[in-house]
Amino acid sequence: MNAILARIVLALCLIFVPISLIRAQETKYVMVIHGGAGTILQSQMTAEREVAYKTKLTEALNAGYQLLKSGKPSLDAVEAAVRILEDSPLFNAGKGAVFTHDGKNELDAAIMDGTTLRAGSIAGVTTIKNPISAARAVMEKSEHVMMVGPGAEKFAKEAGLEIVDPSYFRTQSRWDALQKAIKEDSLKAAAEKSNRKGQLFGIQNKDNKFGTVGAVALDQKGNLAAATSTGGMTNKKYGRVGDAPLIGVGTYANDIVGVSCTGWGEFFIRNVVAHEVAALMAYKGLSVEAATQELIFKKVPALGGDGGLIALDKNGRMAMPFNTEGMYRGAVTQDGKIEVYIYKN
Amino acid sequence: MNAILARIVLALCLIFVPISLIRAQETKYVMVIHGGAGTILQSQMTAEREVAYKTKLTEALNAGYQLLKSGKPSLDAVEAAVRILEDSPLFNAGKGAVFTHDGKNELDAAIMDGTTLRAGSIAGVTTIKNPISAARAVMEKSEHVMMVGPGAEKFAKEAGLEIVDPSYFRTQSRWDALQKAIKEDSLKAAAEKSNRKGQLFGIQNKDNKFGTVGAVALDQKGNLAAATSTGGMTNKKYGRVGDAPLIGVGTYANDIVGVSCTGWGEFFIRNVVAHEVAALMAYKGLSVEAATQELIFKKVPALGGDGGLIALDKNGRMAMPFNTEGMYRGAVTQDGKIEVYIYKN
Repeated sequence: MNAILARIVLALCLIFVPISLIRAQETKYVMVIHGGAGTILQSQMTAEREVAYKTKLTEALNAGYQLLKSGKPSLDAVEAAVRILEDSPLFNAGKGAVFTHDGKNELDAAIMDGTTLRAGSIAGVTTIKNPISAARAVMEKSEHVMMVGPGAEKFAKEAGLEIVDPSYFRTQSRWDALQKAIKEDSLKAAAEKSNRKGQLFGIQNKDNKFGTVGAVALDQKGNLAAATSTGGMTNKKYGRVGDAPLIGVGTYANDIVGVSCTGWGEFFIRNVVAHEVAALMAYKGLSVEAATQELIFKKVPALGGDGGLIALDKNGRMAMPFNTEGMYRGAVTQDGKIEVYIYKN
Repeated sequence: MNAILARIVLALCLIFVPISLIRAQETKYVMVIHGGAGTILQSQMTAEREVAYKTKLTEALNAGYQLLKSGKPSLDAVEAAVRILEDSPLFNAGKGAVFTHDGKNELDAAIMDGTTLRAGSIAGVTTIKNPISAARAVMEKSEHVMMVGPGAEKFAKEAGLEIVDPSYFRTQSRWDALQKAIKEDSLKAAAEKSNRKGQLFGIQNKDNKFGTVGAVALDQKGNLAAATSTGGMTNKKYGRVGDAPLIGVGTYANDIVGVSCTGWGEFFIRNVVAHEVAALMAYKGLSVEAATQELIFKKVPALGGDGGLIALDKNGRMAMPFNTEGMYRGAVTQDGKIEVYIYKN
């Protein structure tokens, strides 16, 4: 009997021990970031430009990682990473933001603390150097969650944030993109006039709506935080607000998962994407991979939208799905291993 | 044997037939509305004022019901009901909206179509007579979901909506409430100065944040729609935006349920309340009563917030929970029976 028992124990060990070892070795991520999704084609990218993007993504991941490693909260890590991306003219947030139809750089940002469900958001601001820090100030220094326009700027100034002249955000390439979009828009209007039923969206530059930055981090205490910052849509009119500054839509974190989105904002709003990811995980038991894929490959495209998102769960599992040609993105493990990607793998 | 079988059949009939009859007789509602939650005390209400509120709620319910009865879509019904409440100085939406710190009436509204998940929203507008119709125009006549400030007003004008002088929204009682709030605010600041750790929120007028109108309807085709409109918070500063115009937060509808919220907006945003109700029903299998109670009696108070909401599901079951003293509210059945309430029952 003893011999049989020993064999059973051995067999069980052979079956289960390797599985538990594999699980133990599963990579644990502590931060994921994105720099926007869209039609990013390798054929249209120079080697220098690719290096520039990857270098900046790495810098942002490293900044966040160093804070997490030293025991700082995930809120600090996501703010630091997003500030670096805001300060870089490569991304559509802060310096290098796209222009509105009226030739302005109108910025939106949001931040959320997963453990306390505290959140802060600003939209339509034109003079705050780092919108993500203003969103954090709204969260920490006011009774409110969301502030928009000149009122939000007044608050940011009183809260001691760095204020800049609107010209600070200007880059020539974004200005040229606006001129192109305006030209295409008038062509579209002409086409629309001659054929009311057709071509309404046919000649629109799809990528006018893309480019946002974001980060999600998990700190040593197990707290998740998410942050998103954007210049919105090139040639946007009428004070349009996209998904980025909307809590539960472009930005959300709770004690299960943190999410930051990038894409065609209108379709992300209608799907309440970030909160839907959290709900699918909490109430339907989906993994972070399955929940995010449900949104990016089913629900958002079902309405006609596209884009991507990054998500990180409380166990350090991450997902970075997108249904566009590319998405600037990266992640760092708890051991400090940094991965950055641009195209589909 | 036959006698025994007959007895069994009879027994089963006695058990199950009454239950099925009860189920068949369960009231089916086609529209629910609210006119805001808050400290509404019977002791502070005159009989005339109570009649005025109930009359206006009845008028709004009847307007929506007539449209639904004639086969019109639920979107038409919620818009019609909310317009009536916006036009009434009794409620904090449209005419009779509360004043911001700067003495303005800044209005927010949102509307959502449950079947298509189309949505429209405006925030911070001061010249649009019926903000809910502007939200619908954003949904139906633009590619966008949300517009804020002067841009949203420009769009509304181009879309042919009725524009009024900002003075149209002014009522003496709301103006007096602002003066009172400003006075309390300066007392609060003084108290804060003398005792930094205490009394920060102690002498604030809690009801400054209340009063919103909303409607949810179910049409003959089974389509749900939700709409919310508000003047926000008395004495609000810094371009603060509350939950009402945020899709998924103060307003949401899908093919399962429609929701419109009223309460301390910040806590509703942090809980993504309206979408959370839908998620609890879709993924956790909760009824509309259980899902809405989870939010209003657990999740929102857990963070320190209060308020209420109305919800109607695809089967015509409704819920109108609130954790404040009262909530102006009402519902109409598919047979046209109208119920209106103010206090706890």
